[in-house]
Amino acid sequence: MIIVLRPGTGEADIEDVCRRIESLGLRAHVSRGEQRTIIGAIGDDRFKTRVQALEALECVESLVPILQPFKLASREVHPMATVVRVDGVEIGGPRLAVMAGPCSVESREQLRTVADSVKMAGAHILRGGAFKPRSSPYAFQGLEEEGLQLLAEVRKATGLPVVTEVLEPDKVGMVAEYADVLQIGARNTQNFSLLKEAGQSGKPVLLKRGMATTIKEYLLSAEYILAAGNPNVILCERGIRTFETATRFTLDLNAVPVIKKLSHLPVVVDPSHGTGHWEYVAPMAKAGIACGADGLIIEVHPKPEEALSDGPQSLKPAKFAQLMRELRPVAEAVGRSL
Amino acid sequence: MIIVLRPGTGEADIEDVCRRIESLGLRAHVSRGEQRTIIGAIGDDRFKTRVQALEALECVESLVPILQPFKLASREVHPMATVVRVDGVEIGGPRLAVMAGPCSVESREQLRTVADSVKMAGAHILRGGAFKPRSSPYAFQGLEEEGLQLLAEVRKATGLPVVTEVLEPDKVGMVAEYADVLQIGARNTQNFSLLKEAGQSGKPVLLKRGMATTIKEYLLSAEYILAAGNPNVILCERGIRTFETATRFTLDLNAVPVIKKLSHLPVVVDPSHGTGHWEYVAPMAKAGIACGADGLIIEVHPKPEEALSDGPQSLKPAKFAQLMRELRPVAEAVGRSL
Amino acid sequence: MIIVLRPGTGEADIEDVCRRIESLGLRAHVSRGEQRTIIGAIGDDRFKTRVQALEALECVESLVPILQPFKLASREVHPMATVVRVDGVEIGGPRLAVMAGPCSVESREQLRTVADSVKMAGAHILRGGAFKPRSSPYAFQGLEEEGLQLLAEVRKATGLPVVTEVLEPDKVGMVAEYADVLQIGARNTQNFSLLKEAGQSGKPVLLKRGMATTIKEYLLSAEYILAAGNPNVILCERGIRTFETATRFTLDLNAVPVIKKLSHLPVVVDPSHGTGHWEYVAPMAKAGIACGADGLIIEVHPKPEEALSDGPQSLKPAKFAQLMRELRPVAEAVGRSL
Amino acid sequence: MIIVLRPGTGEADIEDVCRRIESLGLRAHVSRGEQRTIIGAIGDDRFKTRVQALEALECVESLVPILQPFKLASREVHPMATVVRVDGVEIGGPRLAVMAGPCSVESREQLRTVADSVKMAGAHILRGGAFKPRSSPYAFQGLEEEGLQLLAEVRKATGLPVVTEVLEPDKVGMVAEYADVLQIGARNTQNFSLLKEAGQSGKPVLLKRGMATTIKEYLLSAEYILAAGNPNVILCERGIRTFETATRFTLDLNAVPVIKKLSHLPVVVDPSHGTGHWEYVAPMAKAGIACGADGLIIEVHPKPEEALSDGPQSLKPAKFAQLMRELRPVAEAVGRSL
Repeated sequence: MIIVLRPGTGEADIEDVCRRIESLGLRAHVSRGEQRTIIGAIGDDRFKTRVQALEALECVESLVPILQPFKLASREVHPMATVVRVDGVEIGGPRLAVMAGPCSVESREQLRTVADSVKMAGAHILRGGAFKPRSSPYAFQGLEEEGLQLLAEVRKATGLPVVTEVLEPDKVGMVAEYADVLQIGARNTQNFSLLKEAGQSGKPVLLKRGMATTIKEYLLSAEYILAAGNPNVILCERGIRTFETATRFTLDLNAVPVIKKLSHLPVVVDPSHGTGHWEYVAPMAKAGIACGADGLIIEVHPKPEEALSDGPQSLKPAKFAQLMRELRPVAEAVGRSL
Repeated sequence: MIIVLRPGTGEADIEDVCRRIESLGLRAHVSRGEQRTIIGAIGDDRFKTRVQALEALECVESLVPILQPFKLASREVHPMATVVRVDGVEIGGPRLAVMAGPCSVESREQLRTVADSVKMAGAHILRGGAFKPRSSPYAFQGLEEEGLQLLAEVRKATGLPVVTEVLEPDKVGMVAEYADVLQIGARNTQNFSLLKEAGQSGKPVLLKRGMATTIKEYLLSAEYILAAGNPNVILCERGIRTFETATRFTLDLNAVPVIKKLSHLPVVVDPSHGTGHWEYVAPMAKAGIACGADGLIIEVHPKPEEALSDGPQSLKPAKFAQLMRELRPVAEAVGRSL
Repeated sequence: MIIVLRPGTGEADIEDVCRRIESLGLRAHVSRGEQRTIIGAIGDDRFKTRVQALEALECVESLVPILQPFKLASREVHPMATVVRVDGVEIGGPRLAVMAGPCSVESREQLRTVADSVKMAGAHILRGGAFKPRSSPYAFQGLEEEGLQLLAEVRKATGLPVVTEVLEPDKVGMVAEYADVLQIGARNTQNFSLLKEAGQSGKPVLLKRGMATTIKEYLLSAEYILAAGNPNVILCERGIRTFETATRFTLDLNAVPVIKKLSHLPVVVDPSHGTGHWEYVAPMAKAGIACGADGLIIEVHPKPEEALSDGPQSLKPAKFAQLMRELRPVAEAVGRSL
Repeated sequence: MIIVLRPGTGEADIEDVCRRIESLGLRAHVSRGEQRTIIGAIGDDRFKTRVQALEALECVESLVPILQPFKLASREVHPMATVVRVDGVEIGGPRLAVMAGPCSVESREQLRTVADSVKMAGAHILRGGAFKPRSSPYAFQGLEEEGLQLLAEVRKATGLPVVTEVLEPDKVGMVAEYADVLQIGARNTQNFSLLKEAGQSGKPVLLKRGMATTIKEYLLSAEYILAAGNPNVILCERGIRTFETATRFTLDLNAVPVIKKLSHLPVVVDPSHGTGHWEYVAPMAKAGIACGADGLIIEVHPKPEEALSDGPQSLKPAKFAQLMRELRPVAEAVGRSL
C-alpha cells in the first residue's frame, strides 16, 4: 500500500502516519518527491486491512494498493492451474466441460427430456434450478426440494453429474446432499455467509460473477470459499450490467484472460445469461471458448415458449446439439478438445 | 404487455400467439400496422409472469411491458404516502429522520461515545453494524451477537432506536430481538430469501438499493417484503456502480423523485456510501434533502483513522454536528423540518 | 508516477527502467518491498506523458499515477475560485447564475416568448440551440445561422446574454460573433480540435461533461481550453450513462463537490438533460444548488408537446417561474443568493 | 410508436393525442385495456421524429418505440450483407480482413518497419494515426499532414491500403487524398458534422463505436453516412465504458451478433483498445472472430515501451505474426478464411 500525502504535510504528520503504519505490523518507507511525499507501507497488507482507515487522516490525499488483495485465489501464490474434478469430469484441464439443462426444473418429464438430449449432444454436466431467485415475488420460485429429488433421479438415470443453485446458508447441507456442484448465483456473489457455508460443504462450487462485481472483488469472493478450506472453485463469467439494452447483460469476455492471468482457478462462460436471447447464445459460446474459457453453461428447454423462467434465452435441444457440433472445431483451433 | 411480431408473420402464428395469451388468462388484441403487427396482452400481467416466455417464439420480435411490475409498492395502487413509525420517530412525514452512527460496532465505549454525540447533534436513530459484509475474508467481520447486545444497551441508555444490518434469513429472528429497524444492505437487495424472512419479522425494514439494481427491480424487492405482510419498508439510495472512480459509488439522486413518483414508500439517502469520502458527505446530504428525501443515514466515528471499517467515509462527531446545523435551513427551504 | 515491477524482476531490468525514467527527464527512486519492487518516477510527469509507455515492458506489472494529470485546471496550482464574467453576470461568485431557454431555437416568436418569460422569472442568461447534434439524421438539425441571428435579435430586445452550442471547429468564429458564451456539448467533450479552437476564441466557454467522461478526463478537456489561453471555462454536469433507464441519464451530483475540490473552475448543473423528464427537473435543480453548484441551465418551452427537440424534458414558463421562486430559499440555505 | 396514457385519462385528452398523431402524418389506433389506454401511432415514425415530443403531454405516461429508428443501416430493409471493397481487400465477405499498424505514425522508419512486418504476417490493411485525439493537451498530438504523407509513401512501397483517422469535418478532404479508408474514432461517433462530411467523401469509412454509444445510436450514426450517399461503412466494436477497471474498456462482443442481426454492414473488432493490454489482445482477437466479426484492427509497434501513444496495448511484430498463425484455424472453425 502506498499512502500519498497532501502537499504541504509537515514532519509531525509524516511521523504520525509512519507510527500508525508500524503499529499495524507493516514497515514505513518515506519517499519525498517534488510534488508529493509518499509513504510505502511495506509488508503483506492483505491481512492488515485496517491500513485502509488511514485514508481518513486529513493529511492523506489517497491510498494506492500495490498488491492484489486475494492470496489463495492468486496465480502468483499458486502458479499451477487448478483442475476441479466432478465425478469423472475435469474442469480446467485440456478438455472443455459443458454444463447444460433447463433454467428451472419444472417436472420429471421436462427434466428427463432435456437431460437425455443434452447428454446425447455431448454435454458433461446437467444444470437445473430447484431454488430460483426471481426479481418478482409473483414469478415461479422453483420446485425446491422436490426439484432436487428430480435432479438426483435424473442423474441416476443418465449418469450426468448435477449442478444446481443454493440460495441460503442453511440450505447448503440439503442441496449438497443431492448435487455434485453447488452453484452460487450472480445475486449472491457477495453473500458472504453463503460463501463461508459453501466453503465448508466439501462440494465443488460454481461461483458466478455478480452483475456489478469487479474482477478483484470476484476473486475475493472466491477467496472466502478457499479460505474456508474448499479448493474446488469454478468461476463463471455471466455478463455485467452496463448501459447497453440490446442484450440482457454485457458478457465481459475480457474477464476470461484477465482471470487466467490473475488466478489459477478454472473459468467457464454462461452465454445464456450473458446475452439473454437464444439467437446470440451460439456465437458467444464460441467466443468464450476462443478466448480461453474452460467450459460453458447453457440453458436448454424443450419448449422455451412455455418455460417457467428464462425461456427467451433457452436453446431448443436440436439447436444445442448443432452448437455442440460447431464448438468442436473452435475448441480444437485453440488447442482444446470437447 | 405488448407482443411485437417479426415482419412477415403469418395468420397461423398470429392465432397461435393469441391462443397462448388467452390460455394464460389474459385477453389478446391484435393491431396490424404498416410495418409491424402487434398484439396486446390485456389484463394484469404482474401476476402472469409466464407471458414473458412468449419472447422465445421465433415469430416474436420483442415484448414491451406497459405496466410497472410491482403492485403493493406502487403509488398508483396506494396513492397516500406511507409513514413508517419507529418508536416515536416518523419516516416519511413532514419531519426528516436522521440515522447516524458508526459503520461497525467496535466496542461499548466507541458506540456510546458516538451515540451520545449524534443524539446531542439531533439524530433520531442510531445506526451500527454487528454483522458486517466485507469484500475480503481477512477484514473485520463484526462483533456479531455481542455487537447486538451493545446496541441494545446503548439504546437503553440514550433512548435512540437502533437500525442494524441482518445478513442471513435465519438470523432475522435474532437481530429482530435487539433492533428497532432491520437493515438489508446493498449486496442483499436481491437476496429474496432474506426479503421474505424480513417480511415476516414484523419489524420495519430499511432496504438499501443494490449497486446494480434498477429502480424497477428495487421496487420489486420491496414488493417481496410487502407481499409477506410487512408494510413498513423504508427505501434507501446509497450509490450505484458506474465508470466514475473519483467517488466510491455514484449517488443516484435522480432515484429520489423517481421513487416518489412511482411509489408511496419513504426514501432516505446515504451520502456516506454514496460518495465514499467524508469531504463529500455534507454537500450530498444537503442535496438529498433538497430533492425530496425523507431522511439520511450517515456514518460517524470518533476516530475515523482507526475505524475497523469505512473510516474514510466517516464524519467525526463535530463535523456531524455542524452538518446537522447546516441541514436545518435546507430542510426548511423545501418545506420540511429536522 | 509509480512503476510497480513484477515479482522476480532482476537488477538488470530495474536498472533499465531507471535509465528510461531518467532519459525522460524524471528522477528514479527504487523501493524494494517484501512483495514488490517499485520505482518512483519523480518530477512533473504531467508534461512527460511518454512515461506511460513503460507499462509495455514485460517486467512492469502496472503504473500508478500520483498526480492529477491537469495543471491549469487544478485548485492545487490555482487555489482561488475562478469567477467567469458574462456581460455583467458572474458565474462562480456568491450569486447563482441561471441559464434558461428552449432546447432549439425554432422561430422568432417561440424564442421571444421564452426569453421574455425566463427573464421575468429571474433567469440571467438565455440558452437556445441553433446547431443541434441529433442522434437521428432525420431529426430537426437546427436553424443554423438563422437561429444565431434570432438569438442576437432577442438578446438585444431583452438584454439577456446568450449561450449557444458550437459543433465544429470552423464554425467557432461564426458562433462567437453572435453568442456571449460558447457551449460545447456532451458529445464533443473530447472533440479536441473544437476545444483548441474555442480556447482561441476569446469567449467564455460552457463545457459540458461527456456522458462517459470521467472527472479526470473532463478536467483534461478543460485544460485544452485553458492551455490555449482562455481562462473563462464554465463546467457543467449534465448526467452520465449508467444502467438505469428510469431517467434519460444519471445526474452525477457527486461531481459537483469533487470538481470543487480538484479545480477552481465554476460548475453549473443541467437537470433537464440529467433527468430527461420535466417532472424531475425541479427537485434535481434544488439538489444541484444544495451541493454547491454555481448555477443551473434549464430547458423551457412554451409548448413542450410541440417542441422540435427535447420536449419531454422542457418546463413550461409557469413551471419555470415557480421553480425560480422555490430555488431562492434553497440558495440562501447554502449561503448563496439568486 | 405506442403512446401509453396515464390511468384516468379522459376522452378529450385521448382525442387530442389522436389529433396530434394524425397531424404528424401518422394514423392513430386506440386500444383500451383494463389498466391502461394505449394509442398506436401507425406509420413510419423514423421520419416523423416530432412524435417524440408527445411524451411532454401531462396525460402521457410513456412512449414506446416499436421500430428500430434507422432504415438504410437495417437488415430488414437491406437483407443482403454489405461487402466493402478497399483496393482489392473485401470486408464483409468470406475472407476476414486484418488491419494492423502503429497507433501513431511516429517516423518513416517506424512506420516502414511495422508495415513490412504486418504485411509479412498476412495483414491486409495498414493502420496508423496522423491526427491523434489525446486526453491530455500535453501528449503527442500526431505528425498531422506529414504523417499522412508517410502513410502514402509506405502504402506505395508495400502495396497495403491505408486506414487513418480524421478528426474534423474540414480535414476530411485532406485525409481522403491520402487514405483508402477514413477512420472515425470512438470520441467522434456522434460528431454528426464529421459523419455528414465523411458521407460525402466517397471513401469507405471505418466508424468506431463510442464508449457510451448504444448499438441503436451507433447504427443511427452509420445512418448519417449512408444517408449522405456513402454505402461503404465498416463498423467496429472497440470496447465500452463500464465499472470494470482491470481492463481499459470492456470489449462488448455481444455487439457483433446483435449488429449482424440488425444490420447488413460489416463489423470488425479492435481488441487493442477493447482491452488496453497487449497480453489480452490475442485471446480477444480470437473471440472476436469466433462470434462472427468480419475482421480485426490491431495495434503493432516495434518498441511498445517507447511508443508515443498506446504502447501498453501494442503487440510487437513477432507476437502479431504468431497471432496471425493462431487465428487461421479459428477462422476456419467458423467457416471463414484469413
